[in-house]
Amino acid sequence: MELSITQPDDWHLHLRDGDLLKAVVPHSANHFGRAIVMPNLKPPVTTTAAAVAYRESILKALPTESNFTPLMTLYLTDNTDPDEIKLARKSGVVFAVKLYPAGATTNSQDGVSDLLGNSLPVLEEMVEQNMPLLVHGEVTNSDVDIFDREKVFIDTILRPLLQKLPRLKVVMEHITTQDAVRFVETCRGGSVAATVTPQHLLLNRNALFQGGLQPHNYCLPVLKREIHRQAIVSAVTSGNKRFFLGTDSAPHERQRKEATCGCAGIYNAPVALAAYAKVFAEAGALEYLEAFTSFNGPDFYGLPRNESKIKLIKQPWKVPEYYALKDGGQLVPMFAGRNLDWLPSTLHERSI
Amino acid sequence: MELSITQPDDWHLHLRDGDLLKAVVPHSANHFGRAIVMPNLKPPVTTTAAAVAYRESILKALPTESNFTPLMTLYLTDNTDPDEIKLARKSGVVFAVKLYPAGATTNSQDGVSDLLGNSLPVLEEMVEQNMPLLVHGEVTNSDVDIFDREKVFIDTILRPLLQKLPRLKVVMEHITTQDAVRFVETCRGGSVAATVTPQHLLLNRNALFQGGLQPHNYCLPVLKREIHRQAIVSAVTSGNKRFFLGTDSAPHERQRKEATCGCAGIYNAPVALAAYAKVFAEAGALEYLEAFTSFNGPDFYGLPRNESKIKLIKQPWKVPEYYALKDGGQLVPMFAGRNLDWLPSTLHERSI
Repeated sequence: MELSITQPDDWHLHLRDGDLLKAVVPHSANHFGRAIVMPNLKPPVTTTAAAVAYRESILKALPTESNFTPLMTLYLTDNTDPDEIKLARKSGVVFAVKLYPAGATTNSQDGVSDLLGNSLPVLEEMVEQNMPLLVHGEVTNSDVDIFDREKVFIDTILRPLLQKLPRLKVVMEHITTQDAVRFVETCRGGSVAATVTPQHLLLNRNALFQGGLQPHNYCLPVLKREIHRQAIVSAVTSGNKRFFLGTDSAPHERQRKEATCGCAGIYNAPVALAAYAKVFAEAGALEYLEAFTSFNGPDFYGLPRNESKIKLIKQPWKVPEYYALKDGGQLVPMFAGRNLDWLPSTLHERSI
Repeated sequence: MELSITQPDDWHLHLRDGDLLKAVVPHSANHFGRAIVMPNLKPPVTTTAAAVAYRESILKALPTESNFTPLMTLYLTDNTDPDEIKLARKSGVVFAVKLYPAGATTNSQDGVSDLLGNSLPVLEEMVEQNMPLLVHGEVTNSDVDIFDREKVFIDTILRPLLQKLPRLKVVMEHITTQDAVRFVETCRGGSVAATVTPQHLLLNRNALFQGGLQPHNYCLPVLKREIHRQAIVSAVTSGNKRFFLGTDSAPHERQRKEATCGCAGIYNAPVALAAYAKVFAEAGALEYLEAFTSFNGPDFYGLPRNESKIKLIKQPWKVPEYYALKDGGQLVPMFAGRNLDWLPSTLHERSI
């Protein structure tokens, strides 16, 4: 069996920079036509000028003959000027602004400290420019249980924000809870959507501890209880157009991830399409797969759908244990060493 | 300020064997008069003969002049014979039998698969011999959320067990939830007690993720939500005699713990007394500290209380970042590199 679908896009991707960028970008370019590229570099991408430069370095790192298009984002800080949003829109290169609550995840120390106060003029300009706000939806107060932080963010920050600015386009990124599902499903109007990662569809929090602590299953927002996973699966396999593909693929070198930093992030770019297909197939909802991977995202962003097609072939393939980096480091992908069905034709035709 | 208390005992300790035993036993012998030594070696200590041999190797590994007394345990398996319990009681060396549900934690693959069926004759003999059953109280079904496994164990295994054998002496080891607290508090008769670790009194599950994944805060049963921590603190600082000190100190070499195995276990022997004192001091309940550390345990086991005294001096001291092992490995203790108050006099007088 094989499926032919419109080429997907990845609406949430970390490509890093330098040698790591060169190592990982082919894995995304193998599958996806476009990707929203997250701006949490060191230093973060806070200006259109920096986004243009970052885009150039991504294009340079691409395999020849790749038609992959990076869609750039700005990192919202306490110092972002509303004029930067105008510049960003004019550039044709920047497609969204990313909100990291300060301290929420990898390289988020420059994030926003007072979204509903200090950041309001920038957000108002984003409404004017129809520029989406991409939200890492967790509060960062260490008194709040880590498994509650998404729900508390929705209740204390996101709802008040949308009451103040009901026309603001918001993507709640990498949702992990039934609370987020309900929030997205019940928001009035068409201004709120969500990306969903492979890991939050296929793993619950037991996977963090199965057979010992599993750093390669650690991401933020952290994996949740099974009922939340099921709620997210139901949401995306129902065909609701407000949910679309965003891998949150986030490479960290093995040694750093396991020991030095314990960084959050799962490297799923090489397996993401196979993983999403598995979810829809197991739910008996393959007819909704293409909308999730290839239609809902561009429709929300107001961009054309891709014209090319890819195939997903129902054929077992083994995920590599790791990918070797030039400097001797390793990248461990999601499902390392395991068998998956649904081989994307792009992988079939090129080597990985 | 200094406190003088009867020398404490550790009613739940992992001493390992070989070089690791030699490295860690002084840390326990520095503080504690006696310790219940867990039998989860490879292969497990399943017979009195093996327990006697293990005891000898512990005594040999002790610093000269140490009066530390190891109290041995047997590892309950599907093949344990009731006669082994008679032998154990006669030996004067074995003081309890440890239940590991198969697959629950480090070296538990030989554990019990059918406690309420196949193991019943052994348990009946334990009632006859007044031999306590020490329980790792978690179900091992991977479908059960890891944070629910203690509660489910109580409801599905421990309650039925005590209905069948109401005279069986049970210690619920390293309790982590308000459910376990309530269970112990409300059991009729004096046959059920619980040990409590420093980590479950001082850390909630956010500590597993604070500033990146923290393997050295990973133990089983895993750290729980703050309300559970608070319930356990309330229980032990209330003076209830059914709760007593059991560190569950569980050394794993750093590299193995961080990368190779992700093993569960926190090495807290060097800091345990300071940590317990911190808990009781912060709760304004120092008057109950000595009963928790030094009376409730021996009273439950029917053993005499220690006669010697130790001092706890309110004086800041810094926990080492790690302890070097002979083979070049490292042991990272709980609270590595942090300052604690309450320096035990035994540490003050000897070097650590």
